[in-house]
Amino acid sequence: MREVAIIGTGLTNFGELWNQSFRNLFVEAGLEAINSAGVDHLDSMYVGTMSGGLFVGQEHVGALMADYLGQTPIPSTHVESACASGGAAFRLAFMEVASGISDIVLAGGVEKMNDGADVTYALSTAADQEYEVFQGITFPGLYAMIARAHMHKYGTTREQLAKVAVKNHYNGNRNSKAQYQMEISVDQVLGSSMVADPLRLLDCSPVTDGAAAVILCPLDMAKKFTDAPVKIIGTGQASDSIALHSREDISCIAAIERSAEQAYKMAGLQPGDIQLAEVHDCFTIAEICAMEALGFVEKGKGGKAVDAGLNALDGKIPINTSGGLKSKGHPVGATGVAQIIEIFEQLRGNAGERQIKNARIGLAQNMGGSGGSSVVHIMETV
Amino acid sequence: MREVAIIGTGLTNFGELWNQSFRNLFVEAGLEAINSAGVDHLDSMYVGTMSGGLFVGQEHVGALMADYLGQTPIPSTHVESACASGGAAFRLAFMEVASGISDIVLAGGVEKMNDGADVTYALSTAADQEYEVFQGITFPGLYAMIARAHMHKYGTTREQLAKVAVKNHYNGNRNSKAQYQMEISVDQVLGSSMVADPLRLLDCSPVTDGAAAVILCPLDMAKKFTDAPVKIIGTGQASDSIALHSREDISCIAAIERSAEQAYKMAGLQPGDIQLAEVHDCFTIAEICAMEALGFVEKGKGGKAVDAGLNALDGKIPINTSGGLKSKGHPVGATGVAQIIEIFEQLRGNAGERQIKNARIGLAQNMGGSGGSSVVHIMETV
Repeated sequence: MREVAIIGTGLTNFGELWNQSFRNLFVEAGLEAINSAGVDHLDSMYVGTMSGGLFVGQEHVGALMADYLGQTPIPSTHVESACASGGAAFRLAFMEVASGISDIVLAGGVEKMNDGADVTYALSTAADQEYEVFQGITFPGLYAMIARAHMHKYGTTREQLAKVAVKNHYNGNRNSKAQYQMEISVDQVLGSSMVADPLRLLDCSPVTDGAAAVILCPLDMAKKFTDAPVKIIGTGQASDSIALHSREDISCIAAIERSAEQAYKMAGLQPGDIQLAEVHDCFTIAEICAMEALGFVEKGKGGKAVDAGLNALDGKIPINTSGGLKSKGHPVGATGVAQIIEIFEQLRGNAGERQIKNARIGLAQNMGGSGGSSVVHIMETV
Repeated sequence: MREVAIIGTGLTNFGELWNQSFRNLFVEAGLEAINSAGVDHLDSMYVGTMSGGLFVGQEHVGALMADYLGQTPIPSTHVESACASGGAAFRLAFMEVASGISDIVLAGGVEKMNDGADVTYALSTAADQEYEVFQGITFPGLYAMIARAHMHKYGTTREQLAKVAVKNHYNGNRNSKAQYQMEISVDQVLGSSMVADPLRLLDCSPVTDGAAAVILCPLDMAKKFTDAPVKIIGTGQASDSIALHSREDISCIAAIERSAEQAYKMAGLQPGDIQLAEVHDCFTIAEICAMEALGFVEKGKGGKAVDAGLNALDGKIPINTSGGLKSKGHPVGATGVAQIIEIFEQLRGNAGERQIKNARIGLAQNMGGSGGSSVVHIMETV
């Protein structure tokens, strides 16, 4: 397998973008990625989207985006793994370059969620339709059960959950692309509307439009395009039952552990080697579960680590420096690629006010549903 | 890149399977493929489905199917390219094995179309939502325009279209998995209800439930499992504008040509080397366009070649020996994988009453929408 690098990125603003269509969002990110990489063609492309069908009545997403990006007749494939669609698209692009099948490949993600669709229903299709959704459960409900299990088993507190949101809004307030560029307090989280006990409004990531794209090529070709390529040194992907009731323990998310194991092994690294991470904080409890599953802290110690500021911008392992899904926003198909872009910018030293000093190795973890799938990538400066 | 072989297959009956669910269909095909290959594990899997979201309210299809097939925590990825989803899933499985990333990979496809969903609307999302579907066009209408353009430019006749359906029903009547195991006459096609002039009911592929799966592994490992692996010697994929109005010429389908060129080049073959083919006859005109785009006949000569029986079971290049989409049925996400299975069975000499003598090299062509994407694979006996 060849070594693979990222050489360019494109990212739209995240938010309620009522004047931007599904295809236009993708094209904006795609063109920016192509321009920033300086490539004159693409060999192939992948598009991560959770449900063009339910959000905007559009499938055949790969071909559509190749057309509007001016890239036909190249192969263009749409990949879906619920909210991990972007991470899965990035992984396939990596594999295609690593294998030698193609040289210059675009991996993108996009979701247009604010367009009149029934968002709660569309998102619920990431859960088990026959055994979960049919009973009326929604995603806040599923993560509320995970939160309750974690609180029961490990003594994790309501305040610790709130601190995840507070920290991510602090970071997002330093990100000009973020949907909610405003700081919030623990009291505001605790006083926000109840959504699914114990999760309140400010524990939940928002409904977001946005797109993200990156360009990958072989590392030895990357130097032609940029002095600062970022190398992909580990990839992992895992599946689990998509229904919570089928799992042995719902206070942890096994698919994150399995996908991280693969990525660490490939990179030859331990969790302690990671200097910063973007993790899938669709709900505050998910960041705590991810910290544990990625091995940053022992199982059950995530809440206390939040109290100690481990994951803060000035902590030992800053997490979600971008603002995370909570503050930056969560256009589901785009999220996995946007996480990669945050790590890329941090490793290049371009993260401005939220820059981590001397960042050399970063990790991105993208999750589908309530943990039915997870994709992990580890990147390093060259 | 490593050489890759198919070592096992699984295929459900195709039809209106009201007592079979989305997941059950996939599991039936997947288990049959695993058993027939004799493998004791999978490293990874791909699932082609056009729209679980719109047909059955279920996305996160990769993880769901890995779970119900008893394969968690392996990576499992859902791939969508409208009606070419199955072919695209197969291509990714091929790439993953060829690259050396994984050894034993399942490529499957499934669609559950008869479940109460608005099928015409769900299928229309393979066309351009903003510029085609919004105006009220449906797929019979799009292919009717292609047919009219072909008739106008080349003198293709209504009877020649009908003969494609007659031939495919003749073949499908010899396939115990086919949805419509009955022969039809030219008069019956010409007398069937008008759907979109000039296409009548018996020019159109039906609405079908079904699933298909195959197991791929490196060729040098294949001999451990079977005496008769089938080698994949060519793969190609191409995109085009998904809207008809953006194309220079709608009497031909450029994406088929582009995808075939890649596959022929990789295989080191010419169209004349192909001994049989499964092509994407979603409507009768599509088989004629495919015969031309694949280089079996010159552009515009497809209709006359049908008159001459070129594509008949005893013709020079038998096409759709399975019955094709027209008679076998068209569960959209499964179709591309089912085509591969027909070529596999023919190359192994297991096609029973519809067996082609001495078949050594076969081709499968799977299309998305009205030609917005196409995937071609060429296979050979070892």
